[in-house]
Amino acid sequence: MAMLQDSPTRAQALEAYYRDLERYSAAPLWTVLHQLLTPVPRPRAVPHLWRWNELRPQVYRAGELIGTEEAERRVVMLLNPGLAGACAVTPTLYAGLQLILPGEIARSHRHSPAALRFIIEGHGAYTAVDGEKTIMNPGDMVLTPSWTWHDHGNESDEPMVWLDGLDLPLVNYLDATFFEEYPEVRQPLPKPVDGSQRRYAGALLPTYEHHLGAASPLLNYTWERTRATLTELAAEDAGSPFDGVILEYVNPRTGGPVMPTMDCHIQLLPPGAQTEAHRHSSSVVYHVVEGAGYTQVGDQRLDWQAKDVFCVPSWAAHQHVNASGAEPAFLFSFSDAPVQRALGLLREGV
Amino acid sequence: MAMLQDSPTRAQALEAYYRDLERYSAAPLWTVLHQLLTPVPRPRAVPHLWRWNELRPQVYRAGELIGTEEAERRVVMLLNPGLAGACAVTPTLYAGLQLILPGEIARSHRHSPAALRFIIEGHGAYTAVDGEKTIMNPGDMVLTPSWTWHDHGNESDEPMVWLDGLDLPLVNYLDATFFEEYPEVRQPLPKPVDGSQRRYAGALLPTYEHHLGAASPLLNYTWERTRATLTELAAEDAGSPFDGVILEYVNPRTGGPVMPTMDCHIQLLPPGAQTEAHRHSSSVVYHVVEGAGYTQVGDQRLDWQAKDVFCVPSWAAHQHVNASGAEPAFLFSFSDAPVQRALGLLREGV
Amino acid sequence: MAMLQDSPTRAQALEAYYRDLERYSAAPLWTVLHQLLTPVPRPRAVPHLWRWNELRPQVYRAGELIGTEEAERRVVMLLNPGLAGACAVTPTLYAGLQLILPGEIARSHRHSPAALRFIIEGHGAYTAVDGEKTIMNPGDMVLTPSWTWHDHGNESDEPMVWLDGLDLPLVNYLDATFFEEYPEVRQPLPKPVDGSQRRYAGALLPTYEHHLGAASPLLNYTWERTRATLTELAAEDAGSPFDGVILEYVNPRTGGPVMPTMDCHIQLLPPGAQTEAHRHSSSVVYHVVEGAGYTQVGDQRLDWQAKDVFCVPSWAAHQHVNASGAEPAFLFSFSDAPVQRALGLLREGV
Amino acid sequence: MAMLQDSPTRAQALEAYYRDLERYSAAPLWTVLHQLLTPVPRPRAVPHLWRWNELRPQVYRAGELIGTEEAERRVVMLLNPGLAGACAVTPTLYAGLQLILPGEIARSHRHSPAALRFIIEGHGAYTAVDGEKTIMNPGDMVLTPSWTWHDHGNESDEPMVWLDGLDLPLVNYLDATFFEEYPEVRQPLPKPVDGSQRRYAGALLPTYEHHLGAASPLLNYTWERTRATLTELAAEDAGSPFDGVILEYVNPRTGGPVMPTMDCHIQLLPPGAQTEAHRHSSSVVYHVVEGAGYTQVGDQRLDWQAKDVFCVPSWAAHQHVNASGAEPAFLFSFSDAPVQRALGLLREGV
Repeated sequence: MAMLQDSPTRAQALEAYYRDLERYSAAPLWTVLHQLLTPVPRPRAVPHLWRWNELRPQVYRAGELIGTEEAERRVVMLLNPGLAGACAVTPTLYAGLQLILPGEIARSHRHSPAALRFIIEGHGAYTAVDGEKTIMNPGDMVLTPSWTWHDHGNESDEPMVWLDGLDLPLVNYLDATFFEEYPEVRQPLPKPVDGSQRRYAGALLPTYEHHLGAASPLLNYTWERTRATLTELAAEDAGSPFDGVILEYVNPRTGGPVMPTMDCHIQLLPPGAQTEAHRHSSSVVYHVVEGAGYTQVGDQRLDWQAKDVFCVPSWAAHQHVNASGAEPAFLFSFSDAPVQRALGLLREGV
Repeated sequence: MAMLQDSPTRAQALEAYYRDLERYSAAPLWTVLHQLLTPVPRPRAVPHLWRWNELRPQVYRAGELIGTEEAERRVVMLLNPGLAGACAVTPTLYAGLQLILPGEIARSHRHSPAALRFIIEGHGAYTAVDGEKTIMNPGDMVLTPSWTWHDHGNESDEPMVWLDGLDLPLVNYLDATFFEEYPEVRQPLPKPVDGSQRRYAGALLPTYEHHLGAASPLLNYTWERTRATLTELAAEDAGSPFDGVILEYVNPRTGGPVMPTMDCHIQLLPPGAQTEAHRHSSSVVYHVVEGAGYTQVGDQRLDWQAKDVFCVPSWAAHQHVNASGAEPAFLFSFSDAPVQRALGLLREGV
Repeated sequence: MAMLQDSPTRAQALEAYYRDLERYSAAPLWTVLHQLLTPVPRPRAVPHLWRWNELRPQVYRAGELIGTEEAERRVVMLLNPGLAGACAVTPTLYAGLQLILPGEIARSHRHSPAALRFIIEGHGAYTAVDGEKTIMNPGDMVLTPSWTWHDHGNESDEPMVWLDGLDLPLVNYLDATFFEEYPEVRQPLPKPVDGSQRRYAGALLPTYEHHLGAASPLLNYTWERTRATLTELAAEDAGSPFDGVILEYVNPRTGGPVMPTMDCHIQLLPPGAQTEAHRHSSSVVYHVVEGAGYTQVGDQRLDWQAKDVFCVPSWAAHQHVNASGAEPAFLFSFSDAPVQRALGLLREGV
Repeated sequence: MAMLQDSPTRAQALEAYYRDLERYSAAPLWTVLHQLLTPVPRPRAVPHLWRWNELRPQVYRAGELIGTEEAERRVVMLLNPGLAGACAVTPTLYAGLQLILPGEIARSHRHSPAALRFIIEGHGAYTAVDGEKTIMNPGDMVLTPSWTWHDHGNESDEPMVWLDGLDLPLVNYLDATFFEEYPEVRQPLPKPVDGSQRRYAGALLPTYEHHLGAASPLLNYTWERTRATLTELAAEDAGSPFDGVILEYVNPRTGGPVMPTMDCHIQLLPPGAQTEAHRHSSSVVYHVVEGAGYTQVGDQRLDWQAKDVFCVPSWAAHQHVNASGAEPAFLFSFSDAPVQRALGLLREGV
């Protein structure tokens, strides 16, 4: 076959060709190959920090504007500036700040996207999941796994704000989103309050309970226990060079991630600590529980304080610094690493 | 807290509020919740059919316009009309038609997206993967799993066209794409030609070979064997009510899907067969190997003939009809079901 | 072929035949088939109870007869009366009572049989396993998994007695026993005392520790926690109809049994409780931690008191009765169920 | 405590003590510890060879002495000379030679011990398992997994002899033997003859068949395929230094052993081949399919010819030699390696 030379004629021929392909819902690969197959990931998501002192007033403003009857949707979503048009912090992960006022109820429903709540302020509101109720306090990490009935209520006399973490962008991307309202405002609660903590928080599991789900049966990983464990370990362990003393919240029935699509970690950076930089193809959302410092992400420095939220996109080198010489810093985080691991795609490097 | 009434004042207040949120890279959830959490999946991808008799001339035209030195990228991509801007047939899956002319070589490289090739026409060109070469003929299904070195060459005297199937949209979406050129045009080939067929095509596995990858070690699932097996089984089995006599190409070391992100099936629809409708949250790309008929997808009827390609998006009810009363029809397909299954998201229904 | 009739001649022919077979290390199946293939298991092991008030004096007598330099072997083994010649309580399980006197050290070694210790009396002696030391108290359950270096020492001023549980009969039967002395009396102890309790006793796991073994990394399941958990659950759960409120000690990295060959359980029988009878093809060794009552095993009634040991052979129907109307009873047990489960042989019935 | 000196008095005291312990079903560990915990396995089973030319006449003699109505038990068992009293070749494995005469039927039954048959001579008799019938010929390897209904029949006009391999000693040892007669002489056969070969012999699996068992669904691994595969591979592979070109018969649904308790291998020793010695804690029964040579097991040399059977106990170093310079030798074998692997006990060395 004779090949057309690189010439005006050829350019015209190609243009005509591309128009024809378009008619057949087709397109040339050769013009886009290098964008599709990059040597390393080139995420559109950017490193970004959301400041609690800026967002907190906005969250409370929603409490004035959005009524009690819509409490279950009164959430200020955090949007990655690089992902225009997406309700997402990273391609796979969603984060939002939800406010629930005294006396309010967020109606019962379930959905295939999985959710976690990390309590930021307020004391004594509850979440109920599949028949069990837990009372929530700051630092608690509460799970509402995929397709579990859940509702929230605030029977205390102060507002509560928590960080919502969901795999919603991923599940939407996969066209696998299902949603259902519970027929009543609240589900029945046949199980003892906080019963899963007594059944699943230790290395002793009840054999008479049959729990078939893929997610952790432990509803609430309380801050009281989490902080105590971290503090004890920090007295004897250096931990990871990249993350300090870091613990994974696990599913006690498998030792694996709390849910198939997201893993959750808590880490303590000792006073003055500066971790080494590393990178991985998973993306992460961080929440500062206590302390102040900064995280260097590529050439960006994210200076954080307690209750801020920030994100690290795929393959961005990052290192954490605790700016205080006196107090430890605590970072909570959730990531999509289980997704990439299950698919053989997770890669780590320095 | 006093709640603002639904009034012009409230509308203005909300608008002002939303503008403020935007400044903080934030947004209200309540205005979009129902788009995010739909009762069932609402895929943007649409059912679509690409006709071989329309595309074949376009593929050969690429052979005239794109030179031998770019043979590895001479691919006509199939684009789902509903997924504007994406190089994708479904959110997760890519399909393209690649032409390789006599004497050409597609240079050796590797990438984290996984690929499969289903041979449409031509005889005797080869694919080499991690040191093993296979000779390809129509109907063969050839794997180039994630991060394996691969190259192609056509040492025959006729052009070859195959269907490329990749998880490229998924891997790009996850920001997990890595790519590397091999230092030479071709990789060395220390292994016997088609050796994996002798080692892995039966229920007898060599214990002296250590294969650690997650993907199938079988390079080529030849049409000769595949068609013979299907034909034999069709004589004695009715198969699935939804798919007729359907076989999964499996990884002989696990009995599971050939690659962690895509599974591959081949099905035979007996003469006159009409399957029952069903639906699933995974998405599928089909290629007609032999026969003629149609697939009803929701309210759309896709009439297909041999070598056409079509797709079924998530949760679309679909049923297959073999229009011939005399000849069986053979459909090859690949899907993202392993992704959804690994993440606990796969759902099926009627 | 002409068949010989059932006659004196035939009997003689058979006898001659059997003698001939013997010469060739062979034998007829037909004379023993019904002994080999029984409708249900016919264990040689019998239900049996070892009384603490009888054995305790014998254990202390060993302390007088066996010197400090042999402390690591100063164990009174419990032998099932039905298994003459075997050092075993059931075909697979070994149990013994070990005494360690103040000031003594049981030298460091390792072996492929796995062991557990359940502390009966004494306070403050230690076990060290692979570099970690734990201080032991009554009710603690301490693991020394297969091929881990372990030694014991009594730095307190009172004797300690514990129940040893091993899979020794199984491992010997399988001809898979390996044993090695540590070059020194004690191994070095680089790890923090009881560190695994802080790392592995909750649903928070350190990601910076790489533990590759098949057994639980948790060295000591302390009675303090175990009893508290059981007591809490008994206030809200009925538990299993066959076992009351029963918990499995699990490997926190897998949610599975603490070791591949033995699982361990603790159960609370509320005052006056009488469980339903059931049976299983696994065999079990029980130790009474607190309380008094009886276990009906087939037609035998085993009346037990605190610190007694008893066993239930395969397929024996058994039910437990707490004879006290005021106090709960606590039973510790270990079994070979993981072996049968792994091999597809475990069967349960009523 | 004052310790008694090593003296006549002490000896008497110990003797009295041991008598007392006996009364309580107890015994000292210290007198037997070194027998229980050996540095390496000390199997009672010995290496042994059973000669086909000696056993064949004995097997046919059984055909004269044992009538057709007892055909299902007309088996000459092979007994390891070291395991007096056990119907076993190694502690876990049973082997026997079964004869079935023209016109005979071995009645249908099932049992928890798993079985395999390796056909030695005769053509065209059948085995039926769970509704499928297979026609057997020399070299075929036929599975009757745990608890599957099975019967045999000889509708040909020549006797058939096969090697029975079972895990019967293991299952009996574990007190997990269950047995049941089928209500009729033969079970119904709704499935196509040899249908599993078409469904499961390749890397294409029917998704419409739900097979839940732990064992391979492939009923017959035919010699025709096995020999062809081995011969092809021997032309291009050296295989293992210890075993030559060796293939594992696998469960096509898992890539793992054919049954949870036994794995099966076939190996080709090229003309003149001498493998290197190695050892493992599993035990193996070998059957010579073709060829002549010897296996050095420790200091014993077992000279074998076609159709002989021999065994290699745990931890015995062994190497194989093909004595022919012209013909390959083929060895079939089955072992208990899956048992030890599942329990974390399998060890290999040189």
